Amino acid sequence: MGARSLADTGVGYVDTQVARLYADDHPLRLASGESLSPVDVAYETYGTLNEAKSNAVFICHALTGDAHAAGFHVGETRPGWWDNLIGPGRPVDTNRFFVICPNLLGGCQGTTGPASPRGGVGEPYGLDFPILFMSDLVEVHRALLRHLGIARLYAAVGGSLGGMQVLQWALTYPAELANAVVVAASSRLTAQNIAFSAVARRAIMSDPLFADGHYATEGVNPDTGLSIARMLAHITYLSEDALSEKFGRDPQYGKQHPGFGIDFAVESYLDHQGEVFVERFDALSYLYLTRVMDYFDPFAKADSLAAISAKPLRWLVMAFDSDWRFGVEHSRYILRKLQKAKQDTTYREIPSPWGHDSFLLEVPRYHDTIRAFLEAGHA
Amino acid sequence: MGARSLADTGVGYVDTQVARLYADDHPLRLASGESLSPVDVAYETYGTLNEAKSNAVFICHALTGDAHAAGFHVGETRPGWWDNLIGPGRPVDTNRFFVICPNLLGGCQGTTGPASPRGGVGEPYGLDFPILFMSDLVEVHRALLRHLGIARLYAAVGGSLGGMQVLQWALTYPAELANAVVVAASSRLTAQNIAFSAVARRAIMSDPLFADGHYATEGVNPDTGLSIARMLAHITYLSEDALSEKFGRDPQYGKQHPGFGIDFAVESYLDHQGEVFVERFDALSYLYLTRVMDYFDPFAKADSLAAISAKPLRWLVMAFDSDWRFGVEHSRYILRKLQKAKQDTTYREIPSPWGHDSFLLEVPRYHDTIRAFLEAGHA
Repeated sequence: MGARSLADTGVGYVDTQVARLYADDHPLRLASGESLSPVDVAYETYGTLNEAKSNAVFICHALTGDAHAAGFHVGETRPGWWDNLIGPGRPVDTNRFFVICPNLLGGCQGTTGPASPRGGVGEPYGLDFPILFMSDLVEVHRALLRHLGIARLYAAVGGSLGGMQVLQWALTYPAELANAVVVAASSRLTAQNIAFSAVARRAIMSDPLFADGHYATEGVNPDTGLSIARMLAHITYLSEDALSEKFGRDPQYGKQHPGFGIDFAVESYLDHQGEVFVERFDALSYLYLTRVMDYFDPFAKADSLAAISAKPLRWLVMAFDSDWRFGVEHSRYILRKLQKAKQDTTYREIPSPWGHDSFLLEVPRYHDTIRAFLEAGHA
Repeated sequence: MGARSLADTGVGYVDTQVARLYADDHPLRLASGESLSPVDVAYETYGTLNEAKSNAVFICHALTGDAHAAGFHVGETRPGWWDNLIGPGRPVDTNRFFVICPNLLGGCQGTTGPASPRGGVGEPYGLDFPILFMSDLVEVHRALLRHLGIARLYAAVGGSLGGMQVLQWALTYPAELANAVVVAASSRLTAQNIAFSAVARRAIMSDPLFADGHYATEGVNPDTGLSIARMLAHITYLSEDALSEKFGRDPQYGKQHPGFGIDFAVESYLDHQGEVFVERFDALSYLYLTRVMDYFDPFAKADSLAAISAKPLRWLVMAFDSDWRFGVEHSRYILRKLQKAKQDTTYREIPSPWGHDSFLLEVPRYHDTIRAFLEAGHA
């Protein structure tokens, strides 16, 4: 499920591009009041923008995603992270849509973030990078759209933190998108959600090699803390049943030799997840982006429904029944708010055993629902 | 709920005693095949042993508990950890029962464990302490009973890891106890259960001050790793709803100042839990005792029901509906096994919003059930 090879028809070979969207003469004004420049954004596109520029679909990625959502980079044998969803004939059909996916602000895969050189030329920002809010991420997405000469999206689509960006965008600028797809997201983290991220951050920041955020300058990396954060997060990405089905109580080796190493298969899985993660992700991005989620609470504002009430749009909100990171109640809460604002909302709770991770997997009923929703929409 | 003062009637002032139960000329033979000596056991007793020695109730404590289950130590203002359950007129009624509570083998509060001096006189064992299994913990409990001159218990009572010890004891030596009370326990951890402990152990062992287990010798302590382990565990001890009710999304300070410190109330709670834990608990005990739980799987043995089938006893098995560390399915599994062995089993799923922690709290229906079960039993 989900794994594809070069032999698959798909969007084929793709490249990541980088655009400088903000510079010293036009810095990014952040929600905190601070300014940031330069801001570079890495992004990929798939499919062709039509003449009316009315077929653009914007993909917002989750916490540890990147701009490489579909197709293959030359020399690589694994496709982008949402390749099962995006491509010719796939639910986000590149025969019809022009698909854009950027790395988000604060990220570490080509877009400006805390590991970027200060002012574009200096040492990495480290903890001097300004605090970000969801609205900052969306402002940069909007700047990318302007850069591409697109005034309005056919749709914005995102899962988890990606869905939260879509929600923020649609609530604030409903005229800029016709259809919003919000999958396995939350509009306000629970105390438990925040608690898990707090422990992850603690593991990162208390790693001596975090070096108060100056690890890059010092030529080290908080691998230990970052891998613990990832191991912990992975437990929450899968349902308890999925972990049981995949690993049960299986020993990692034929005969168990009890000790404090990797005795059980599930320990080997977590260990591997932690190990590969530190090769591709930055510890400071993990801190900044989890805090973006912690503070996200758009419906807390008294006038949060004013804009969409004046300019309704079409919504698809989806949750997975076995997701316990952002359980169905998170999506139901979003649904109730949208209904209050009289939006055209389709809501689905998709049966899937895989927990939060389901949004990345080729769950047929989930993919069919996105396909049908996008096919039936209007620009 | 649960907090009591010196003014309460209760068992009053108590002392912890220590008995040397194994020595070089009669070492403890462990399930692993290794031997251990000496083995000292710290324990407390409440109430009076009757002449027939038929009124002894044995309390098995959970992962981070100790021998001080009830009453007050001189100079302290907080009673023992299960004082709400144990005392004159309380569910485990010291007017009727003689109550015994030891610190378990591998612990760090008076009973021999990995932080104890090797051979009773040397440097701390560290990771050279032998691997323990649940049956080892029970053998030491049995040795304490012999030391006290008691051949048979009226009851053994335990919650969480405590309930697992009771289960092991009753399955192996059913003639030694008339009534078994197993609360919020598990007879086989799930992959998710093991995974949480694996991350906790990783945090401890990767703390540079863990020093390969020689931290005591080197005069340091892995406070950071141990506090992360505790913070993580605490998330699993409370239900998501309980965390929401206690903390919600409340900021820790009146006006939030976003950053990577303690922004939310739930972060302050976890931080405090981690901080006080390292003052009272040993990192190596955490490793050894979580592994005891990981490997516990008594019903996996083909003949696991033979002993109790030949010598049935009376059981009370209880779970809490909001417990997601050892959810009700763990207790239902134990129940099914006991029913298969035609045991006299009372099973209750207690409504309580507090999650796994409920077994430590004064939940009326829970306490009433224990009271009634113990009142109705026979020695």
